[in-house]
Amino acid sequence: MDIDALKSAHPDHWKKAAAIRALTLDAVHAANSGHSGMPMGMADVATVLFEKHLKFDAANPEWPDRDRFILSAGHGSMLLYSLLYLTGDAEITLDQIKNFRQLGAKTAGHPENFLAKAIETTTGPLGQGIANSVGFAMAEEIQRARFGAKLVDHHTYVIAGDGCLMEGVSHEAIGLAGRQKLSKLTVFWDDNNITIDGKVALSDRTDQKARFEAAGWHVQEIDGHNPEEIDAAITAAKKSDLPSMIACKTHIALGHAAQDTSKGHGALTDPEQLTAAKEAYDWPYGPFEVPAEIKSAWEAIGQRGAAARGDWETRFSAASGAKQKEFERQQNGEAPKKLSATIKALKKQVSEEKPKAATRKSSEMVLEVINPIMPETLGGSADLTGSNNTKTGDLGVFDVDNRAGRYVYFGIREHGMASAMNGMALHGGVRPYGGTFMCFTDYARPAMRLSALMQQPVVYVMTHDSIGLGEDGPTHQPVEHLAISRATPNTLVFRPADTVETAEAWEIALTQQKTPSVLSLTRQGLPTVRTEHKTKNMVAQGGYVLADAEGKREVILIATGSEVEIAMQARETLQAEGIGVRVVSMPCMELFAQQDDAYRKRVLPGGPVRVGIEAGMRAGGWDRWLLGERGREAKAGFIGMDSFGASAPAGELFEHFGITAEAVVAKVKDLLG
Amino acid sequence: MDIDALKSAHPDHWKKAAAIRALTLDAVHAANSGHSGMPMGMADVATVLFEKHLKFDAANPEWPDRDRFILSAGHGSMLLYSLLYLTGDAEITLDQIKNFRQLGAKTAGHPENFLAKAIETTTGPLGQGIANSVGFAMAEEIQRARFGAKLVDHHTYVIAGDGCLMEGVSHEAIGLAGRQKLSKLTVFWDDNNITIDGKVALSDRTDQKARFEAAGWHVQEIDGHNPEEIDAAITAAKKSDLPSMIACKTHIALGHAAQDTSKGHGALTDPEQLTAAKEAYDWPYGPFEVPAEIKSAWEAIGQRGAAARGDWETRFSAASGAKQKEFERQQNGEAPKKLSATIKALKKQVSEEKPKAATRKSSEMVLEVINPIMPETLGGSADLTGSNNTKTGDLGVFDVDNRAGRYVYFGIREHGMASAMNGMALHGGVRPYGGTFMCFTDYARPAMRLSALMQQPVVYVMTHDSIGLGEDGPTHQPVEHLAISRATPNTLVFRPADTVETAEAWEIALTQQKTPSVLSLTRQGLPTVRTEHKTKNMVAQGGYVLADAEGKREVILIATGSEVEIAMQARETLQAEGIGVRVVSMPCMELFAQQDDAYRKRVLPGGPVRVGIEAGMRAGGWDRWLLGERGREAKAGFIGMDSFGASAPAGELFEHFGITAEAVVAKVKDLLG
Repeated sequence: MDIDALKSAHPDHWKKAAAIRALTLDAVHAANSGHSGMPMGMADVATVLFEKHLKFDAANPEWPDRDRFILSAGHGSMLLYSLLYLTGDAEITLDQIKNFRQLGAKTAGHPENFLAKAIETTTGPLGQGIANSVGFAMAEEIQRARFGAKLVDHHTYVIAGDGCLMEGVSHEAIGLAGRQKLSKLTVFWDDNNITIDGKVALSDRTDQKARFEAAGWHVQEIDGHNPEEIDAAITAAKKSDLPSMIACKTHIALGHAAQDTSKGHGALTDPEQLTAAKEAYDWPYGPFEVPAEIKSAWEAIGQRGAAARGDWETRFSAASGAKQKEFERQQNGEAPKKLSATIKALKKQVSEEKPKAATRKSSEMVLEVINPIMPETLGGSADLTGSNNTKTGDLGVFDVDNRAGRYVYFGIREHGMASAMNGMALHGGVRPYGGTFMCFTDYARPAMRLSALMQQPVVYVMTHDSIGLGEDGPTHQPVEHLAISRATPNTLVFRPADTVETAEAWEIALTQQKTPSVLSLTRQGLPTVRTEHKTKNMVAQGGYVLADAEGKREVILIATGSEVEIAMQARETLQAEGIGVRVVSMPCMELFAQQDDAYRKRVLPGGPVRVGIEAGMRAGGWDRWLLGERGREAKAGFIGMDSFGASAPAGELFEHFGITAEAVVAKVKDLLG
Repeated sequence: MDIDALKSAHPDHWKKAAAIRALTLDAVHAANSGHSGMPMGMADVATVLFEKHLKFDAANPEWPDRDRFILSAGHGSMLLYSLLYLTGDAEITLDQIKNFRQLGAKTAGHPENFLAKAIETTTGPLGQGIANSVGFAMAEEIQRARFGAKLVDHHTYVIAGDGCLMEGVSHEAIGLAGRQKLSKLTVFWDDNNITIDGKVALSDRTDQKARFEAAGWHVQEIDGHNPEEIDAAITAAKKSDLPSMIACKTHIALGHAAQDTSKGHGALTDPEQLTAAKEAYDWPYGPFEVPAEIKSAWEAIGQRGAAARGDWETRFSAASGAKQKEFERQQNGEAPKKLSATIKALKKQVSEEKPKAATRKSSEMVLEVINPIMPETLGGSADLTGSNNTKTGDLGVFDVDNRAGRYVYFGIREHGMASAMNGMALHGGVRPYGGTFMCFTDYARPAMRLSALMQQPVVYVMTHDSIGLGEDGPTHQPVEHLAISRATPNTLVFRPADTVETAEAWEIALTQQKTPSVLSLTRQGLPTVRTEHKTKNMVAQGGYVLADAEGKREVILIATGSEVEIAMQARETLQAEGIGVRVVSMPCMELFAQQDDAYRKRVLPGGPVRVGIEAGMRAGGWDRWLLGERGREAKAGFIGMDSFGASAPAGELFEHFGITAEAVVAKVKDLLG
């Protein structure tokens, strides 16, 4: 790479880009860890994007109509931090750059959306950023259809590396984007031909350009160090009516001794090589030093969008008060006031009518009343619409010619769906929910973890939640999936027992601001157990006494979802024999754990033997409630699964695996001695 | 679709294919559930493949040199069961077909490899079969390089649907296959233009042919109902030096009222429509009836390969006794006798030298002695070779021109790697292990579950197993991943504390026949805690007393992996204050659970307070050991994580999250009261 030619051809550009490269070298050196090569390779692309195209106002990083910049190759976090510091972001200060990767810094090893307003999304797990970006771009289309181009008209730009493009989720993402012709989405592929293990060709020879074309994308290839080519390509991408991929030929760790090698991917900390690289850049400044003229030039870029933002504010102010209010409510993720009354009315009706319904069907009943009063909801399914019961009558289908549609046929793309939903939630203005079989939590899992880590209130509608799925067999029967979601921090896992609990769970899920929810719903029909209407949302307490013991309380049965019915049957048998049995419905362990000690002791007093009942693994968080947090509370047992399931009609499987009222009764008697 | 034209053009073919269609209709009708449309659409392709190309001998389904047939679109299981029954498989009898999807039947809803010898792999979770098949094809290349084409020379054929091709894992699989030019792999794409939600175009417009070409595949397109075109395409695929994709234009549910509709995907049980379809087929026979002449024709197909198998047996017998024995040992997955002595010698050396080493490094030390004596091992990493320490000096790199290489650069494809490893293990003759960061368990998860369900002894080398990973931050720091793997049935999760335990864990993992293993290994250095050499494999007991209390035993500390060091430090402090502390190292909870009651009570007697220490979530199986299976055993506490991690140097994070000897001491004192 002839750096001198780059410098002399575009001296002003060069200096701005060199600032990114130098800051990266200094921060990684100070931290003695990090990834230098990617920011050094992509500094030119980022500089041109920010200087010439990205619509943003550094002083207002939360301006709703800003363009979104997604660093999918999140290990190159110093690229983003450099850009934010240079353009004048209030949070990513020079001190933060100097504290790169240190405890408490906003400049974490990988960009974390919850640490600074200007960080759009958390990236690092490869492929997530590009998959999020599909959701960002869809949210923009949806919001524009809803509020008009005067208020919503922005682009989504992504930098992705070979890692992102090798990950399977990228396939799901680009297929969905191509199908939906998300023309305001542009992906820069950092085509540097290097992965951690060596040359890309060690593991991959995919023709990425042909691949994106096959998925329906507009594709260009440029020299990623030539600012004119970069500028022209972005201009062309913006004009295309397809999503755009710009293959940027770059040199990883440009100008460093490690250039074009896999060593260049990681932390370049050798002081002499660092000095030599800075010399090659004509960058005679001290560590973390950016000369005032270059900083000013960058700050001007950061202010470039201020006028556009001002115009937007004017247009926003000109909109009707109702429109402003609704825009802000949706943007802030606030549930409408009517939600509570709507849920209460449904609960009342259901408590009276006492339908027998699968909770997936219950969920549909709830959505039928929610979707009409919450225009911000966006539903979808990974090709199981009729099974997940996620589509209600009023939604319309999101499509190229119907951006107002609120239902997405995500295709057989559980992972891409989850990651796109994260993007929608991060974008704001959209409250996404999506369905698949609970067992395919596995496929969506990397993105579900990120919903929790990124504090995004995405709702996962996971139906067919046990061996109750029946004949499809063990590949489709979750047994460990409640455990998986319950072990994940900042995740609410709901396993409602009937339509009333399902309505309560949905109400809680839709009022979350920072926590995703997993709804674990049955395929098979369940009786209504909440037959007495209560206005109070009982699920909000996580667990509660559904039926108390008559006579001396000797036993507490704790059950969730479809097994609450079994607990109630076992209670009847035991009470008939004079054994007092309390039944606790425990639809959400996380919320129960959040109740105060007094409440929890009232629901689960020490003394009586306890039996947990759930058609899943005991490892799914049970021992805490069965045995007590500090032990010694009760003699306890569990009725559930301790193996994979099998293929047979559901009723036979419950018998076969011993998840029956008879088995509960026997366990209780064994424990009573 | 003009069925009459099909019938008259190829009447003999038609009858054979019609047998599959009729059996499918009858079995789904009897089960009142299942998927009719796919077998009815792909019956012609399967018939030609089995009749003209597939090398198999129905009487010997485990013949090692058979061609492999993988039904990636596993919901179409009746296609496979029909083929097996018709060709005379001893296990898939007519009774089994009649019991389709019933409890105890071998004809489960989706094909389960462990139910019948002729079922090569478990499919149903979409994309897994095609990704397995890459491992099958790699194993064939490897085994051929090792034993020669006289003993190993077979093809892998796959039927995949749109679902398989939309799933992200298919991208990883076809990229890897294209890179490795797996020329003996052929994928039939059931291009029927239908998914569950409707037309494929609802969610996808990918040009699949262009996509496979971009990944380096040989691509053809045919009429999937024309036997001559099918035959010619398979012949051409076999000649290509690239993996082959044959796009088969088909009609789902051919000849049924539901043909070409999404309804045709599922269970077609309407009796009148069923009768009409059979009439269209000229199939006047009763339910489950296949006339003798058609059954005979199919049985002849089943016997077609008998001669080839006989020739193979002759060639096998002509090989040297040592070669025969080694082939069989590898094929049967038996560890070499030397393994035990080799591990013991390493343990002795390490106990004496007492190195401080990260357990990922310990793992490499173990592999350095194992790989030379186990030629069947095949290592790899998802682009983290230098971090996972999975490549030893002697392996060589598997590549197009070096099929004897035993190390695979899998690329940034955790899911594809795991699924390919499943395929290798299923194929036989190869014992695969593969590495990534423990946090990316999430990406590999769908295939990891299948390792367990399919009973395949794949080894997952999961390094950087806690906040000890440091600065890369919470996206890369597992906290719930031990819980995830421990909640999965039939999975051994090892978290060794030092090099000795790592060696013992590897020995156990490599002697498994039916259980996958997850090795949870540190990034950071750990002292040797097993300083006294014991020939016995202590990890085999799952948990054991590492250091007993001096004086009265008041406390039991239970720890795993990197936290054993902390437990030992806390013990020292407490003992100095006169408090007797036992330290139990618990490297494998599953194996501890398998010990008899007496042993477990010896290690964890009731009475002393217990504190568990692990830099993960308490939900990771802890309460059972802390509180006792039936409760009331001990007062207990836990020192670990209850949130996501953060970005900072590892030592600071352990302080920050309170996972220190001081915190353990404080917790103990609190519990002692």
